[in-house]
Amino acid sequence: MFGTSKDVKNWNRERSETRRNQWGSTRMKIRGPGDGPRRSVPFQRISITGIHITGVPLDDLKRSASFLINALSLRKNYMEISNQSFPDDLAYYLTHNEGPPYFNDNKEKPQNNEAYLRFHPDLDEKYCDLTTCSSEELLNFQQIDRHNLRSETDRRIQDSQEDLQDEGPGDEDPWNCPTPPDRHLVYRWKHGVVQVYKNKEDAYENKKMNYRYLSFKQYVEDMSLLTDMISDGPLKSFCYRRLSYLSSKFKMHVLLNELHELALQKAVPHRDFYNVRKVDTHIHAASCMNQKHLLRFIKRTLRAQPGQVVALRDGLPITLKAVFEEMQLDAYDLNVDILDVHADRNTFHRFDRFNAKYNPVGESRLREVFLKTDNYMNGAYFADILKEVISDLEDSKYTYAEPRISVYCKRASEWGELAAWALRRRVYSSHVRWLVQVPRLYDVYRINNLLKNFQEFLNNLFDPLFKVSIDPHSNPELHKFLTHVIGFDSVDDESKPENPNLTENMKTPEEWDDEENPPYAYYLYYMYANIVMLNQLRKEQGLNTFVLRPHCGEAGPPAHLCAAFLLAENISHGLILRKVPALQYIYYLSQIFIAMSPLSNNSLFLRYHRNPLPDYFSRGLRVTLSTDDPLQFHYTKEPLMEEYGIAAQAWKFSSCDMCELARNSVLMSGFPREMKQRWVGLTYERAGAAGNDIARTNVPDLRLTYRLETLRAELNNLFGV
Amino acid sequence: MFGTSKDVKNWNRERSETRRNQWGSTRMKIRGPGDGPRRSVPFQRISITGIHITGVPLDDLKRSASFLINALSLRKNYMEISNQSFPDDLAYYLTHNEGPPYFNDNKEKPQNNEAYLRFHPDLDEKYCDLTTCSSEELLNFQQIDRHNLRSETDRRIQDSQEDLQDEGPGDEDPWNCPTPPDRHLVYRWKHGVVQVYKNKEDAYENKKMNYRYLSFKQYVEDMSLLTDMISDGPLKSFCYRRLSYLSSKFKMHVLLNELHELALQKAVPHRDFYNVRKVDTHIHAASCMNQKHLLRFIKRTLRAQPGQVVALRDGLPITLKAVFEEMQLDAYDLNVDILDVHADRNTFHRFDRFNAKYNPVGESRLREVFLKTDNYMNGAYFADILKEVISDLEDSKYTYAEPRISVYCKRASEWGELAAWALRRRVYSSHVRWLVQVPRLYDVYRINNLLKNFQEFLNNLFDPLFKVSIDPHSNPELHKFLTHVIGFDSVDDESKPENPNLTENMKTPEEWDDEENPPYAYYLYYMYANIVMLNQLRKEQGLNTFVLRPHCGEAGPPAHLCAAFLLAENISHGLILRKVPALQYIYYLSQIFIAMSPLSNNSLFLRYHRNPLPDYFSRGLRVTLSTDDPLQFHYTKEPLMEEYGIAAQAWKFSSCDMCELARNSVLMSGFPREMKQRWVGLTYERAGAAGNDIARTNVPDLRLTYRLETLRAELNNLFGV
Repeated sequence: MFGTSKDVKNWNRERSETRRNQWGSTRMKIRGPGDGPRRSVPFQRISITGIHITGVPLDDLKRSASFLINALSLRKNYMEISNQSFPDDLAYYLTHNEGPPYFNDNKEKPQNNEAYLRFHPDLDEKYCDLTTCSSEELLNFQQIDRHNLRSETDRRIQDSQEDLQDEGPGDEDPWNCPTPPDRHLVYRWKHGVVQVYKNKEDAYENKKMNYRYLSFKQYVEDMSLLTDMISDGPLKSFCYRRLSYLSSKFKMHVLLNELHELALQKAVPHRDFYNVRKVDTHIHAASCMNQKHLLRFIKRTLRAQPGQVVALRDGLPITLKAVFEEMQLDAYDLNVDILDVHADRNTFHRFDRFNAKYNPVGESRLREVFLKTDNYMNGAYFADILKEVISDLEDSKYTYAEPRISVYCKRASEWGELAAWALRRRVYSSHVRWLVQVPRLYDVYRINNLLKNFQEFLNNLFDPLFKVSIDPHSNPELHKFLTHVIGFDSVDDESKPENPNLTENMKTPEEWDDEENPPYAYYLYYMYANIVMLNQLRKEQGLNTFVLRPHCGEAGPPAHLCAAFLLAENISHGLILRKVPALQYIYYLSQIFIAMSPLSNNSLFLRYHRNPLPDYFSRGLRVTLSTDDPLQFHYTKEPLMEEYGIAAQAWKFSSCDMCELARNSVLMSGFPREMKQRWVGLTYERAGAAGNDIARTNVPDLRLTYRLETLRAELNNLFGV
Repeated sequence: MFGTSKDVKNWNRERSETRRNQWGSTRMKIRGPGDGPRRSVPFQRISITGIHITGVPLDDLKRSASFLINALSLRKNYMEISNQSFPDDLAYYLTHNEGPPYFNDNKEKPQNNEAYLRFHPDLDEKYCDLTTCSSEELLNFQQIDRHNLRSETDRRIQDSQEDLQDEGPGDEDPWNCPTPPDRHLVYRWKHGVVQVYKNKEDAYENKKMNYRYLSFKQYVEDMSLLTDMISDGPLKSFCYRRLSYLSSKFKMHVLLNELHELALQKAVPHRDFYNVRKVDTHIHAASCMNQKHLLRFIKRTLRAQPGQVVALRDGLPITLKAVFEEMQLDAYDLNVDILDVHADRNTFHRFDRFNAKYNPVGESRLREVFLKTDNYMNGAYFADILKEVISDLEDSKYTYAEPRISVYCKRASEWGELAAWALRRRVYSSHVRWLVQVPRLYDVYRINNLLKNFQEFLNNLFDPLFKVSIDPHSNPELHKFLTHVIGFDSVDDESKPENPNLTENMKTPEEWDDEENPPYAYYLYYMYANIVMLNQLRKEQGLNTFVLRPHCGEAGPPAHLCAAFLLAENISHGLILRKVPALQYIYYLSQIFIAMSPLSNNSLFLRYHRNPLPDYFSRGLRVTLSTDDPLQFHYTKEPLMEEYGIAAQAWKFSSCDMCELARNSVLMSGFPREMKQRWVGLTYERAGAAGNDIARTNVPDLRLTYRLETLRAELNNLFGV
């Protein structure tokens, strides 16, 4: 805030000299009480001793444990058959009723893996030295064995090459991929779920392929078990206590270790929060640009191509200029206020108004012209503006995104059109993977007689996928496009009234011809069940599989979160977890990733300072920061950085916290394994510090060791009784 | 959040048709109750009727009024003699004991001023029409008389030209300015204040020039009057009630008029929050780049110029490379964590630690090399990085800044060196005006025997200025540089312990040879008193004058705010006003601009959600948003936009609020009158809507009418008893 003084200078000089002198001095090891004789990442640990370690009566503990283990087993089963991921650690507990052996001692170095060993020659000793520093020294810590860390001089060159590896597609066809041959399989719809047969004869005889499958009846049973469980009084208390305990423990961890964490981060050459990889895990393609960007794009297009025919009305062509003339607007007039796409005070708890904000100038025709893939111009403008956003992403280099692109399921041709749009207009980037979002709008189409029943909705969604997965040559464009699709999202206003309870006697999709929308959990099951079949089929073909990452728990009943707990690999939002301790606790135990968008919530459902993200994060839930809709919520040209920045300011996140959030976003994302290895470490799939490479993530091992040990302590409580 | 539905489309279409049909319909005028027969900007007004309108007993009111009027008169006097601004309106009240006539009826159009009339042909009728709309229509309002507003087709061309006028300096010398002749005046220091004489004979006979002047004794009396006043019980209650009333009134205003305000904003062609002018009214040059920018600059420089000699040590040259080798760092290693300039959890209420953050890598030598104007390389690197920041400002086109640059007052040569640095390195931009910040470090220099007494501190600060103002040819560089300096800032940690009470028997600056620092109010008086003299001298010479804009009320005792109330045209921070209702109220009544930096406060003194900015703003205090130190606080490449964005998100500011804040920042700034006219309107000096041009500010007249009427109602309460 002001000039330096000679005193300050002297003081600084003295201090740094002292530091240097002390540097090589006695190396007494300070260890946490829980350390024992084991050799492991050293930091200040909090250990709990005594008998009643969970703070509840033993009977309550036993009862709660059986509930929770049961729920976790259910999820394990659902994830396995759908080819979605489930933590190895937890799977081990569920199988062996105890934790896996603790590998972190020597980080179990992959043998003969030079690239890995490079960074971890004397890992533990390095840390042990650090523990001998006073806190003042740690705070000003700089010189620590940085030279050890970079003993190989050409590492940096290699790094730069690695950094370059995921640059743009170059000249070759970005959509190039192997195309397996036609398998001539046959599929049939049965009660809303596809069944696959080897050939027509088998289909006739109903001799299904050996695919695993979970019936709707089973799902209804499991759901009712979960919904009973989350309202169980003693369990609620138990989970609430554990979550509070986890918060307090993290707070203590930070108070004891934050200087240490910071010192370790400083010791990593080159890497900092700005150049760790961040994935925007929840963003909608139609609103991924900010409002000023969209405004400029519209103005520019209107000036450059006024005569472009953009639509037909009553069979007559209508030009871009004419569209604007009808609205009595010209390019110069337009401003952000007229564009009127930003959320404001009037959108809070008004999802209807928020949805209307997707229409620039309140006009759905502008949305049609500029933000749709399937309009008169085959989405030319939308492709152009998306490519501008993507190019900004590529420029910023460390930022990636998983935008949602819509398939409405009104027509079976939508998939083909979407793929054609992406391929022919080269809407591609190594910085982008797509999620397909399916709006829950069956009721609207039904009322307008576009569909007869819910089965047709499912047909439009899945028929093209099964066809192209069985015979990729049947639609090469779609086949190629799908290699860049990582999964499915289910979207709409969750606060709409519905009957959240499922019964096994509910109408099947063929029977569901009501004008009423099916409930959330019904939609989700039929997406899941068909993804199960599709993934098994695609896996056999050597094709990529899909995950289910629905919007869930943004509002509405907790039942949505129960459904996603069973069916979805990970979710967006999860705000409602704050009201349901038992669910929050099992989301924690099963380490389900949650893409949270506090700025979006702030405009729609929950004020920023009440957002549960910092609580979730401190407890160890795997949260990420995402933007949702930069068009509606953000002000700067770097929406994801804005989202991180505000969170850091509002919740006083440290650099370590921020980097952990960024690492979570990479782990949650659907980018290919090789890219993730480059971004966060070769062994990223492993739990705790063993899966961390601080040189890439800037997250100190000790933070991840804390997370892992804390999680294992919780699981030991449950499995130990 | 998801795709449109046919329903939504239909509904939209119907709605917009209804809107269009209703558009030309009956135009019944809805007027607020306080409107009476007067023709004025129509909106929903809140009027208070009855006798005891202030809600306190009449005696209390009378007593409070006399206190407050007295305080306002004091400020009027201090501002007038120092050539600092004071509101015309309030001056009228103080002179005539009643308000000036209400001009807003016809906006008192400047006659024969086409440019002004262009936008206001039928101003009132336009608004009246709007009042006939239902709120739903207003919310979706688009087509309103936009055509009236742009009846002249070439306006836009003219606008673009205007927009271009403040672009860069082109080829001519940016520092070109008239140089008045030597006036051969003589000045002498008397008790810490310069006295000016016509010539040496007059000086000998002590025949001063006819300059106005306020003695320290008078100042001490006025200060004690103010400090007594702010602790007066009944007055505190009165002011607290009025401030609460102002908050509630604004809340009601917004509830009643926000749709109307938004509609008016939409009606302004081209203009929106992104392209209204914003001035960063509080930013320090040494921290005006963000951390990533500084890091990149250091890395780039180290790579490009490793052999550059950057300092002498024991008389021997030392290269940039050597500096980094000593620290065992190289360009590749450096990261933001090592740079360690960002404020974090550990700076809260630790201004000492925060100050240390100005040293990159905790090393004052790096600060010396990269962030100083007077180092071995004469500030070459600092000039380069500043020019990069300035170039970003120019690219963003609508953003301006008033950075603080330091004069430490250790040596008399500092001013000359600073001017030489700026001129020779062409650190210039039409987007930038400088404030000179004077750190309150007398005690440090005294202890190190750099100065003998406080008078020497003042000598070093003011001698060069008086010399060059009397004879600009004596130092042409400084003369030119001063034309771009708009005033003085006084900076340091306000929370340092001090005895805030002044007495008239205090040591004069010549006598002040203690190792203790003089109190804040003492520093401020001697800066003010000499600025008074300097401004009168410079005004006679036809030169620009200076304002005093100190850091004030960031922490520490309320006495700081009393001193600034008397001495300063405007201030930075003002957080402490939240604890002192009487002071807050007179800051409101005298419409003192306050540059607030909530993100800075959040890291240092007050959590974001407790920041009083939204309260101040709602009450009508003239607040602006500024960044303070992007290096320490901000994450994105657009720190000012980040600051606005976070405020908008956290406090749910509307577009109208944001544009009002931006307009405030222009009015507060020291940019030349002609630039301000281009930015916010030809008549910007006038109060209320008469001084507004919505086509430039995007602030609806009705908001400013509300502000003016509310202020006048408060003044009427006081002056009417």
